[in-house]
Parts: sequence; structure tokens; C-alpha cells
Amino acid sequence: MKPFLDDNFLLHTPTAQRLYHEFAAAIPIIDYHNHLPPQEIAEDRQFENLTQIWLSGDHYKWRAMRANGVPERYCTGGASDWEKFEKWAETVPYTLRNPLYHWTHLELQRYFDIKDLLHPKTARQIYDQCGEMLRTPAFSVRNLLRKRNVRALCTTDDPTDSLEWHRQMHRDRDMDVVVLPTFRPDKAMAVENPEPFNQYVDKLESVSDTAVSNYADFLAALKKRHDFFEENGCRLSDHGLEQMYAEDFTEREINTIFEKIRSGKTIDLQEIVKIKSALLVEFALWDWEKGWVQQYHLGALRNNNSRAMRTLGPDTGWDGIGDFEQGRVLAKFLDRLDAENRLAKTILYNLNPRDNELMATMTGNFNDGSVAGKIQFGSAWWFLDQKDGMEKQLNALSNMGLLSRFVGMLTDSRSFLSYPRHEYFRRILCNLFGDDIENGELPGDIEWTGKLIQDICYYNAENYFGLLQPTTNNQQPITNNQ
Amino acid sequence: MKPFLDDNFLLHTPTAQRLYHEFAAAIPIIDYHNHLPPQEIAEDRQFENLTQIWLSGDHYKWRAMRANGVPERYCTGGASDWEKFEKWAETVPYTLRNPLYHWTHLELQRYFDIKDLLHPKTARQIYDQCGEMLRTPAFSVRNLLRKRNVRALCTTDDPTDSLEWHRQMHRDRDMDVVVLPTFRPDKAMAVENPEPFNQYVDKLESVSDTAVSNYADFLAALKKRHDFFEENGCRLSDHGLEQMYAEDFTEREINTIFEKIRSGKTIDLQEIVKIKSALLVEFALWDWEKGWVQQYHLGALRNNNSRAMRTLGPDTGWDGIGDFEQGRVLAKFLDRLDAENRLAKTILYNLNPRDNELMATMTGNFNDGSVAGKIQFGSAWWFLDQKDGMEKQLNALSNMGLLSRFVGMLTDSRSFLSYPRHEYFRRILCNLFGDDIENGELPGDIEWTGKLIQDICYYNAENYFGLLQPTTNNQQPITNNQ
Amino acid sequence: MKPFLDDNFLLHTPTAQRLYHEFAAAIPIIDYHNHLPPQEIAEDRQFENLTQIWLSGDHYKWRAMRANGVPERYCTGGASDWEKFEKWAETVPYTLRNPLYHWTHLELQRYFDIKDLLHPKTARQIYDQCGEMLRTPAFSVRNLLRKRNVRALCTTDDPTDSLEWHRQMHRDRDMDVVVLPTFRPDKAMAVENPEPFNQYVDKLESVSDTAVSNYADFLAALKKRHDFFEENGCRLSDHGLEQMYAEDFTEREINTIFEKIRSGKTIDLQEIVKIKSALLVEFALWDWEKGWVQQYHLGALRNNNSRAMRTLGPDTGWDGIGDFEQGRVLAKFLDRLDAENRLAKTILYNLNPRDNELMATMTGNFNDGSVAGKIQFGSAWWFLDQKDGMEKQLNALSNMGLLSRFVGMLTDSRSFLSYPRHEYFRRILCNLFGDDIENGELPGDIEWTGKLIQDICYYNAENYFGLLQPTTNNQQPITNNQ
Repeated sequence: MKPFLDDNFLLHTPTAQRLYHEFAAAIPIIDYHNHLPPQEIAEDRQFENLTQIWLSGDHYKWRAMRANGVPERYCTGGASDWEKFEKWAETVPYTLRNPLYHWTHLELQRYFDIKDLLHPKTARQIYDQCGEMLRTPAFSVRNLLRKRNVRALCTTDDPTDSLEWHRQMHRDRDMDVVVLPTFRPDKAMAVENPEPFNQYVDKLESVSDTAVSNYADFLAALKKRHDFFEENGCRLSDHGLEQMYAEDFTEREINTIFEKIRSGKTIDLQEIVKIKSALLVEFALWDWEKGWVQQYHLGALRNNNSRAMRTLGPDTGWDGIGDFEQGRVLAKFLDRLDAENRLAKTILYNLNPRDNELMATMTGNFNDGSVAGKIQFGSAWWFLDQKDGMEKQLNALSNMGLLSRFVGMLTDSRSFLSYPRHEYFRRILCNLFGDDIENGELPGDIEWTGKLIQDICYYNAENYFGLLQPTTNNQQPITNNQ
Repeated sequence: MKPFLDDNFLLHTPTAQRLYHEFAAAIPIIDYHNHLPPQEIAEDRQFENLTQIWLSGDHYKWRAMRANGVPERYCTGGASDWEKFEKWAETVPYTLRNPLYHWTHLELQRYFDIKDLLHPKTARQIYDQCGEMLRTPAFSVRNLLRKRNVRALCTTDDPTDSLEWHRQMHRDRDMDVVVLPTFRPDKAMAVENPEPFNQYVDKLESVSDTAVSNYADFLAALKKRHDFFEENGCRLSDHGLEQMYAEDFTEREINTIFEKIRSGKTIDLQEIVKIKSALLVEFALWDWEKGWVQQYHLGALRNNNSRAMRTLGPDTGWDGIGDFEQGRVLAKFLDRLDAENRLAKTILYNLNPRDNELMATMTGNFNDGSVAGKIQFGSAWWFLDQKDGMEKQLNALSNMGLLSRFVGMLTDSRSFLSYPRHEYFRRILCNLFGDDIENGELPGDIEWTGKLIQDICYYNAENYFGLLQPTTNNQQPITNNQ
Repeated sequence: MKPFLDDNFLLHTPTAQRLYHEFAAAIPIIDYHNHLPPQEIAEDRQFENLTQIWLSGDHYKWRAMRANGVPERYCTGGASDWEKFEKWAETVPYTLRNPLYHWTHLELQRYFDIKDLLHPKTARQIYDQCGEMLRTPAFSVRNLLRKRNVRALCTTDDPTDSLEWHRQMHRDRDMDVVVLPTFRPDKAMAVENPEPFNQYVDKLESVSDTAVSNYADFLAALKKRHDFFEENGCRLSDHGLEQMYAEDFTEREINTIFEKIRSGKTIDLQEIVKIKSALLVEFALWDWEKGWVQQYHLGALRNNNSRAMRTLGPDTGWDGIGDFEQGRVLAKFLDRLDAENRLAKTILYNLNPRDNELMATMTGNFNDGSVAGKIQFGSAWWFLDQKDGMEKQLNALSNMGLLSRFVGMLTDSRSFLSYPRHEYFRRILCNLFGDDIENGELPGDIEWTGKLIQDICYYNAENYFGLLQPTTNNQQPITNNQ
């Protein structure tokens, strides 16, 4: 029986262990997509205790607690930090086989060197011990990033954001982690509800110093922000969508729809789809012009619980996986851009694993040979960000595309403690290669396999996104048999 | 090479074997969903031979025989019991890798202590030997249930059912198995065909002693039956649906639609969806008021073969898996109830494994912390009730919810010989935990893991459904590392 | 560590190895579906070099090269044969975990006895050595087929095809491989674009010597070709469809639609669906009358890249997996035929693995006991034609139908070097049975298991398609326990 969470966690063969420890473990991290608050990095925040850094804002843990019968007071409510932690500690032993069980103990080990299991009897001691450590400078936000060898990270930012914290960090000589913004205009596409949308447009007018009296003005204002993000180091855009939009439309139609919204009227489903289709094309063209990478997160069914939406707001753990038609519209959208040779580098993230194979083959329809891995099937995401989900994504990509050109893992996280998830991914990746080699389904060329693993863990992302000065990883290709 | 179907069948590691034999094997069964005929339990039926107890009514076996080129005469037709059995015995060796091969031999072992494999050369001897045993009192229906340690079971019953056999059993002092009805109003929702629907309403009028002249009367009559079921120990409802219905509707619309049907007219698709949406909400509210558990079986594409439907009727082996949109409507339905805090405990069963992850995350959208495991992702069902299907359901549930709070297995069966399927489930469950522990992906805390396994096999169901006086299973949570 | 691609490649247990080597390896091949050019077999073509036989026409390899950043010039463009091969050799080391890596080296081993791995440093030597061999008579097209023990193969042919090469082969006394045509009327259903469709009808008029002035004439002309194909040994039809069409229609409607197209007008979506529905029924009835097997390839999303479509045409590597609704319409189509007992033997191929279970249960809805395995869930296809895809298809079929009655593998290939894919399939099949036996999930009856494996690899296809004089494989069913 293998001990739980030892050095060879998730590495089931000697080859997997060798691949991980010799090639994957030590190389740095580029976390090109997350939801960390830039202010906290800029100010190098210190957290008071585990509840603050671990439980506030973590909807994964809240969902588990609610499923375990824990009242809302202990999740998002008014209970004290310790009470909340206690309830979480009671829940942990009930999360066996859920990724939370792994993440929890991996994070305790990696950041706090705690090998005890979290449960009611160890809760107090772990809480106190971690709290004490968290309050020391060694556990400031930046030091937590350094501890996990994070070289660069990209936050997720609204076009109206002033990027003040990013700008401050760029001026800060002590910053040794590259922190860049990502252009995420979801609110600029949230045309369903005129009131908040129009408030958003007002805000956009102000920050862009552009009067918005029609659709062309709206685009101009957004384009200004896109330029502003570029000036501040942004290299990626991101869009959270149920499914792609690629309806046919005319300029005149879009103008009319935009006027209708601006006059406070609700638009119908077809109008919604048309204007979203129009906006997505604009954003995509700007990305192409600037050589950015565009990301599409597809398949989430959000805000399902209206009671919770009313009281707690979005992103509090009431989203799920949806079953939307993806193929036809996605192909049409990508083709619309590719047809004029203006398709930017693109990452497609898929939330419903039933669509993995569709997504993996979709990328192949628009790889034009201009750059290796131009269209990427993105990392297993959100609910799929665990062993089973990652293996399925890696296998679909392997079978239907080139795993070797994959840009790899991201945390997509709101927590400074979630970087061990890169380690988790790397172990799973090495384990798959290890199995294949030990089974005789791949040649035993450890050097070449190790090079590809390093590419997937770091170098492909470095080359693809261009966030840093490029380095090289030019291992020789396979030259001998086994 | 492991021998076929030995004591450690499906248990691939020493840990799995220990978990199964020490924790799972001996605990009793609550079979909270099946299609057993209550009359046969009340009368403690004896069967004449294996064909009667095994082949009549078993559409799984018929489908396999038809796929094997066996004419209908030997499935549902006029051939003699022995002829039918002979054809089945000829088919069995061709079912390798189908769950029928496992179930067949597991049932021969568990009930008849027969370890021979069934094939043409053993057919006669097995048929005679089992027939002889079946005709003894030890093989009466109740003794068959006792033999498998069944403590409680819930049959599936139409609202117009008199529940006379259930009532007789409740008076029967020799009954040591709790047998309860389930409220399944599928016929009350079968509004597509006015003629049988109106006959059904007539019958409902009669048994409920309520004149039905409008929709309100119809609801009142159904509600009377719901109350009557409650009085007779019912704690669950059940609905067989392609997908959920959650259309918007007004009382006036539903009244009009109901009148249209009652006047013998066919209603259109939108009207069908509206009235089904209305009825489902009513049933759900009654379930919530009484603290029942509501079950939704989603995703079957039924009665595909009209030739067979005409000659043999429904449930004779011509149903399959459908690909219906599930997410949006299901979320809307559940939210409609949850928004007013009137969502009963709910189990979602899914027939298309591609939707497992959607269902597993859907449950999390409505767990409000009021009770552990309030919304359940139900056991792998029908075509998925085999190793691969069960593992996929258990893994999706583990990854996206709390396996530890799962209410576990049910037979969904028409046969008194199908209780070894609980054993089958338990072995698969223990094997998954065993693998994880041996791989170092779970701690080696056998006591705690064993406690969770017992919860999933029995105690969770006991607490969740409230069919019996509750017992306890309060193992200590994990207190040491490995 | 098992060596890469040795004799026991993909065979992980001693039982799997025994099953493969004793039962599966030596039996011949019936490749009942491929896209080989009959002319090249008739003329016994010799290829000049590896690029010609391996890279021209292979969109799998082109897709991998494009994903690896190789410009189109080296895929389908004007680069020299050697330059193209060099780029392919550079790409191969980046295809680890893609089936191309296996196929490439399996084909080098089986045809050329080359055990070196292909990469830039071995490229020149392999290219030269294989070129030399290819130019010898031992590597003529027919000898390549003989080398892999191909007893019969079915090409894919348009109804307007003269079948001249097939006719020549039937007269050729040296032909020891049975080569037969398949009736694939995709162009007769391509009613979306009036111009090419009308050109096609013109051609059909000419080859069928039938004036087509209305829909009845169109059917008559097609029927003549169906008869002509029958006369030339055809036993199968084939249809490439996104999803099935089974709309209701009247003769009058179809006549009107057909006239509209013939007058050069574009028809709308509903008209497209109606006329396709009508045509599919006609084709199916003809197949039933002649006792043919009808094949439906469902789920491809084709020609996604319009830029490539314009410059390179179809089948050049720009297709993917689609997500179409399959269940309801497919059931309706099959029932339409079965209701009158005129449903021919049918194979359903599925391109989206998420629909495997649906397809596997769909077949069971129309197995009427007239012949074993009447409705088949076809082999994993195109993108799914690899270990993971095959295992999923085999497991779904095993769990929901009778694997033992499966007609097995086909190449679906345009390349004369792709026959090792039958070996690949057989190894995977034996490995699954081997695992089950070693795990104690199947009895250790090697003889019976071996017989079923031989059936799946050869005898089922022989009996099902009736392309050859039948032979027998009547192994005794299981007679002892382990």
C-alpha cells in the first residue's frame, strides 16, 4: 500500500516518478489565467488565518459544505472565522474521492509543511499553526507565489478597470513575478438586462473619455481600453460563454439593437445573439491585430439558484455544467475569422467533458501551419480540474491533436494557495506518459519525453503567450530505439 | 489468473477485499425503488421454474436473445417454459462482457448455490435443480428477500392503485420486510393521447370519489390519492421523463388545455409541455409538504419499435437511451421550487452517461445546507446498471459532489432474483476505494472508509428516506495518518 | 519496462497474449469498408516512394503537421516528395500519444521490417530503403494486400460510377482478393446546392440511360444503378450524414421540391430535410429487397474551414466531430422501415463518442430475432479509430449489446498501408478479454473466448455480409468451469 500523498503521489510507475522528479518538478510556473486580485499582490497582503486565505471566496469548498448539510452561516455568512474553519474541518473527512481532499492536504503540505490530515480533532491545531505562519512575512502574498516558483501570472480584468495595481506593480522594483492583466469584456456583452448594461456603458464612457451615442462609439470606447490594456502588458483576452455566438448580422441591425438597449428597452433572444455575435468578431479582430491570444470558456450553466443569486450574488457556488450545442456555431465563428486570415491564436476551454472530443477535433480545423499549436484545446477547467477531468482532456487532446504542443495548466483560481494544482497537473501528465512507456506503448526515450513534458509544463506557454523573454528547451529528438 | 466469480469477485486489491468483507457484505438492504408486484409478496408466491422467475418479464434477457437471433416465440411468445430456458442457455455463452453474464451466474450462486456455468450442456440440469428448489417453501418470495437480507423495499404504484396488497401486508404479522408503495403518476401526465388519458381520469374519479370536471378537480382527486399513499406508508414519488418540463404557464392556460383534452381533442406540443410543467410543480409541492423524496428518471427514449409496441406493449425491451437537452430546464424546474424554499429532497437519475457530470453538478446548485445530501445524483440506472456505468456514476459523483452522502443502490427490478445487484454495487464501490487507498490517493484509514461505505450501502438511505426506525453508524472520523 | 511495439504490443496480460497469438493473429481480413481506388488494385500499381503511398491523401498526417506548425506547401502543396517526407519525419516525434505514432511505426514494421523510429536523423535512410522496396514487385498494391492476408474488401463508389475497374478485376484470373463496390449515393442527396446537384442528375441520366424529368424518374435512374451495382457484386450501401433524416412527407411534396431544385432554385431547410428523408427510405427499401447491408456514418461536422475548402476541396483534413441530436430521428427512421418488416441489416457508425451508449442501445430496439446481430453498432470510426476510441466502442457494445456478434473492424482508409489497423484492433480486443479473464470477471475458457474473438475478427463479417463462400467456426460453447 502506497502512503497517502507522499513524494510519488499520483506517480504509479518508476518511469512516471523519474519523469516528474527529473523533468517536471523544478521548472517554474506561468499561470496565464487566474482570478487573483491584483491589489493584494501589489500590496503584498498578509492573511490573518486559514479561513481568510482558504475559505473566503472558495465556492468549491462552500458547495462541499452545503452538500454535507452545513448551513450558509458557516459558508458565506456571519459565523466567526474559527467557526467556519471548524465546519470545513468537519466536512473534509466526508470529501474522500473529491479533489478537495487532495487539494486541501497538498496545500497544507506544500505551504505549511503540515502532514496531518485535517479533521475535527486536528482542526484547532492546524488552524493555529497556519495562522501563526500566515502572519509572518514569509507568508505574504508575493512570498507565497515565490514559494511555488511562479514566474508570471495573468489576472482577469474588466475593460473599465484602471489597472492601477498592475501599473503600480510594473513600477515596483521588488516585483520579481510578472503580473499582467487579461481583457475580459463579459460585462460589455451582458446586453440581456438594459439597466446594468447601460450603467456599464456609462462607466465605460467615463474611463475611456469617449461619449457613446451609438454602436460605433461603443466599439471605439472599448477599443481604447483594449489599446490601454496592451500598453499595460496585456497579451490575452478571455470570454465566459455558454456557447459561441456566430449569427449573421448587418451593421444596420446592430446599430438598431444597440439603440434599443440604450433607450432602456429589453431586446429579444435573436437580437441578443446578433449583437453578441457582432461584438465577439470585433474583439477577435483586435486580438488578431495585436497578436494576443483569445480564450473562450464554453459550457457553464450559471446562476441556477435565484434565491442564492439574490442574497449572495454570482460566483458563490451555484453554477454547474450545461449541455449546449457547441459544434456548428463554434466552427462558424472560427471560420468567419480564418476565412480572412485574421484568426488570432485561440484557446477553447470546455466545461462539459462529453464535448472533449468535439473540441479536440475543432482545434484541428483551424490549425493553418503558421505556428505550432495555434489553436489550443484548453486545460480541464473548473469542475473538471481534477484527476479524472484532466486525464480525459489530456487523452482527447493526445488522440485527436498534438499533446506535445499543449500550453498546459492554469489555476483559474481566486486563492493564493492553489498553486499546487500545477504540481497536481504535472504529476498526472507524467503518470500518463509513464504508463505508456512502461506498457510499451511509447518508446523508452526518457530525454525526449521529458523535454515534451517540460514544454507542456512551461516552454510552450512561454513561446505561445510571449509574456517573458523567451528561453529554450531544445532537447534532441529521439535518436535511438528504446 | 483470478478464478471467475469467486469470493473476491470484482475486488482487485487486498484493501478492496477487506473493505467489502468486513464492512459491506453483511449489512442489510433498503431497496427504495423497484417494480416488484406487491401481490406476489403479500401472497408469498412460489415459482414453478427458472423461466417463470427469471425470464418472464425480463426485457434485458429478451433483448440479448433477440440480438442473438432468437425468434420472439422463445422470448415473449408461446414456446414452453423449458424451450424458452433452452434458448436462453444457448444465448448465455454469447453474452460474455455483458452484465447479464455476471448477473446470471451471480444469481445462480447466491440463491441456488450453483457454481456451474449456464450453457446448452448444463441447461437441463440447472433448470431441473433450480425448479425443484423453487418449489420448496425456502424459495417463496419472502424467503428469497430474507435470504438477501432485504429490510425494506419500495414498489412502484399508480395513484389509482388500491394499495390493497400493501395494506394486507401491513396487517400481516409475519411480514418482516417493510414493503411500501411509491407514488408514480406517469399516467396522470400522459396527456398526449386523449382517449387513454380520459379513461384514466375516469378511473381516478372513481377511486378518489371525486368528480373531475376541471383541472382543479383533477388536482384535488390526485391530491386525495397522494394523501392516501401517505397514509399507507409511502415516502417517495417517482417520475419517468425524457427530460424535465418547466415551461411558464398560467392557471387559465392550464384550465383551457385540460378542458380541451377532456373534450377528447388532441393538444399540441406546447400545450403538452405546459400542462406537464404545471403538474410536475403540483406533485413536487405535495412531496415537499409531506417530507417525501421525489425521484426523476430522465433520459429514456421509449417504445421505439411500433411493431413490437402493437403486439407486445410497453416494457418489453424496445427502449433505449435518448439525447435530450437536460440542463437549462432541469435547473429552472428545481429553482422554481427552491426559490420559495419548497424544494423536497430530490433524486435525479440519468440514463445517458454523457450527462453524468451535468447531473452531478446540478445537484450542487440546490444543496442548501439544510440536510446532508439533500439533492442526490441517483444510482446508475437501467442500461447503466453495470460495472462501467456504476463506476462512471460513482466517479462523477465523487469528483463533483460528496460520494459519502450518496443513498446508494436500488434494483429497479421486476425480478425477485435481482438482489445480488446490491452486492455487485457494493463490490464495485469497495473496489474503487480500495484502488485509491492502495495507490496512495486516499489515506489508509480503513475504519473511516469502511464507515462511509456502510453509509452509502445502507445508513444514508435509512436516514434520507425515513422508512424505518433510524439506527446509527457513528464511526470516528479519521484521527491518525495512515 | 515493456519494449515499444514488440510482439506483445498492446497485450498486457499472458491471457491477452495467448488469445491474440493463438486465435486472432493469423486469420484473414475482410475489409468491408474503405476508400481504396479500384483502379490502383486493378492495375496493381507500384508506388515510387513513401510520400506517395503514405502522405498523399492522408489527412490524418496533414492535420498533425499543421498542428505542428508545418506550412501547407509541405502537406498538400508543391514541395518535393522528399521535402514533404522530411517535414513528416520532423513531426513524428511530436505525435507521442497520438495514434499516428503507433500506426507509423506499426506500418514500417509490418510492411518494411523497419524497427527504427522515424525522426529527422533516420528520415533519409528510411525514405530511401522503403522507396527501394516499394519499387519492387513484392510491394505492388496486390502484394501489399496479400501480405496482410486480405481476403475481401469493399471500396466506396458513386452510383454513377461505371465500375469498370471492378468489372475488369472480376474478369482477372490473377485476382485472389475479392474486391467489391459499395453504393454510396451522397451526391444524389446533396440537394443543398442546385448547380452541382443538377450536374450530377445530368450525369446520372447519361449513365443510367434514363431521362429524368421528375422525382419518379430520378428514383428510377438511381434504382437502375442500384441494380447495376448488385450485378457487379455489391452487397452494401453507405451514407455519410450529420444525423439521420426522418421527416414526414408526401409524394406530392417531394415532387414539388424536386422540380424546384431542377429549375435551379435553392430549397429551404425543411425542404432539404423532407427530400433527404424520402430518398433515405427509398435507398433503404432497395437494400432490404436485395438483402444488402446498409451503413450509416453519423456525426461528422465537415468542411469547417472555408479557406481550405476553396483552395484544397473536401477530405483534406478540415472535418471534425459534431454534436447533433441523434436519438429521436434515428429511431423514427429505423421504425419506419421495421414497422413494415422491411428493415435491412444495418450498421450504425457514430463519430461522437458521447453518443456510444445511445447507439449501442438503439441497435437493440430493432433486433427482431431474425438473424444474430441484425442491427450493428459499427466500429470506432475516423477520429475514434485508436485505442481509447475502440475500447469505448467495444465496452459500450459489450455492456449494452452482444460483442460476440459484432462484425468487427474496417480500415475506412485511402491508403494501402493501413491494414495493420486490423491488427491494432485485434490486439485491443484480445487485451480487453484478457484483462477480464485474468481479473476473474470472465471464466478462463480460452477456447470459447478465442472462438468469439475469431468471430468478431472474421467469421461474423463473413456471415453477415455474404461476400464469400461461408466457412465455419463452430467451436464448442463453454463446457467446463475455468
